[in-house]
Amino acid sequence: MTPTLNDIRQAAERIKPYAHRTPVLTNESLNQQVGAQVFLKCENLQKVGAFKFRGACNAVYSLTDEEAACGVCTHSSGNHAQALALAARMRGIPAYIVMPDNAPSVKKNAVAGYGGLITFCEPTLEARENTLDEIRLDTGANVVHPYNDERVISGQGTAALELLEDVPDLDVIIAPVGGGGLLSGTAIAATELKKGIRVIAGEPEMADDAFRSMQEGIIIPSINPKTIADGLLTSLGLLTFPIIQQRVEQIVTVSEVGIIESMKYVWERAKIIIEPSSAVAVGVLWEKKIDLRGLKVGIILSGGNVDLEKLPW
Amino acid sequence: MTPTLNDIRQAAERIKPYAHRTPVLTNESLNQQVGAQVFLKCENLQKVGAFKFRGACNAVYSLTDEEAACGVCTHSSGNHAQALALAARMRGIPAYIVMPDNAPSVKKNAVAGYGGLITFCEPTLEARENTLDEIRLDTGANVVHPYNDERVISGQGTAALELLEDVPDLDVIIAPVGGGGLLSGTAIAATELKKGIRVIAGEPEMADDAFRSMQEGIIIPSINPKTIADGLLTSLGLLTFPIIQQRVEQIVTVSEVGIIESMKYVWERAKIIIEPSSAVAVGVLWEKKIDLRGLKVGIILSGGNVDLEKLPW
Repeated sequence: MTPTLNDIRQAAERIKPYAHRTPVLTNESLNQQVGAQVFLKCENLQKVGAFKFRGACNAVYSLTDEEAACGVCTHSSGNHAQALALAARMRGIPAYIVMPDNAPSVKKNAVAGYGGLITFCEPTLEARENTLDEIRLDTGANVVHPYNDERVISGQGTAALELLEDVPDLDVIIAPVGGGGLLSGTAIAATELKKGIRVIAGEPEMADDAFRSMQEGIIIPSINPKTIADGLLTSLGLLTFPIIQQRVEQIVTVSEVGIIESMKYVWERAKIIIEPSSAVAVGVLWEKKIDLRGLKVGIILSGGNVDLEKLPW
Repeated sequence: MTPTLNDIRQAAERIKPYAHRTPVLTNESLNQQVGAQVFLKCENLQKVGAFKFRGACNAVYSLTDEEAACGVCTHSSGNHAQALALAARMRGIPAYIVMPDNAPSVKKNAVAGYGGLITFCEPTLEARENTLDEIRLDTGANVVHPYNDERVISGQGTAALELLEDVPDLDVIIAPVGGGGLLSGTAIAATELKKGIRVIAGEPEMADDAFRSMQEGIIIPSINPKTIADGLLTSLGLLTFPIIQQRVEQIVTVSEVGIIESMKYVWERAKIIIEPSSAVAVGVLWEKKIDLRGLKVGIILSGGNVDLEKLPW
């Protein structure tokens, strides 16, 4: 079932005791640089450093006590794994996380640090899905997909809900797109809350499967993409794609140079740490492929998980 | 005249249209790491990336129209110069900034970028003061000292005022100390607003003139200090020292390693960019030289101006 605005409102109530209400920042230099009035919704300052906590938390707290007792499970090596592990720990239930054995140790440690129970497998989608299936059958844990899950989409939509509470007169809202969980939740919240608001997505040029999916009208899978924005490598899902088709005006692709330049500019001027995936949304304004001059533009900064030892400049 | 709480309240009203009300962030990992409940007042997210904008803005907008017409002037190569230039530009008046000719070009560009009119001089205190004096006599501009100025102290105190509005039940408030403008403003606001609150300062071990001044009961000048916390190199002022003596419980020194470790930890976990001077305040908790376990501790993060090409790790 496609989530509704009401589902997003309920998610907001549900996660309120556990998630940060992140600040909305403005920056005069950035405004001048891009020629628009920009409002940065700082999900990089969210728990686990990413919006992913909203969706994971909503999924975990949507379970009945009986369901919850068996725990939750997912396969992910990214922010979703950490988010689910933390949300589960908050509720006091196990989180079984399937990760490829070649995942960077920093990601393994992060998940383990939040109490996630990791099972390693071969680094193929098939191995990940089979391993997850075994765990589910063994434990009865509830599967929480990173984006193709109504509870997750509703949770992710709460960021836009808060942003529009703080800045009701936005003309445009921009979010990055990977699997589409954040984008579809954002699109539902924004278009239901404000008639005529434009929802635009940013996507790396080097991982432009969502852009092409919108052009073709079918989900084009993301095959071996190479972009610095490593949170945006996945393909759209069966649940997220129709929402995006219906509610997102367009997907704008951003070059690798544009991603890195926007990222560094936000670090330097706004003094916040954003990951490349967040910078993809800023890059839509930065590269000026579309004309948003003079408009009030909200940007969902998706996360801030960056290896400080390996900066791209 | 020593500023009062009322002066700080008036400053808050005066700068409200121009300064950011910065967010107060919390971070569970940091809390666990230091064993206290920490509230980060993010002056790194303030305009020009530092609390300095508060004091400069209050000084500029305290002037009558007649006084303001002649402009403002100061000697500084740091955040205060940028802050004064921006505040003056907002009011539409000139800001004359005296800088040593060996100042890094990034600092010159920043001041010029805010419209400051720079006069270069030899890199000695004498040359800076003489040059400033000439400008003042030539233009009639109002001198705004970086910290030894009531208007500046009152402005800096507004950060603590906001922090205590947001978190009224703090047990302790920590600020870094250089010239003492932020610390004295913070101390007045905090001790007047809340009986029994403890005000503690962080200072680099390698620039411990304020620590020694407190021990000796006289201002010990800071002579050629070598610390990464380059915002904290100056000596206390005649106006700031007595306020600090009267209202600050103690000054805690922080090692260079402690500064760098706290700085990196805040970047990694809280996802915000803080400069070494801010990290000195965090370092007071980090190094655990004094026991603040279990307390609610507010920290004024003074700024976020860092050269991203030269990180200390």
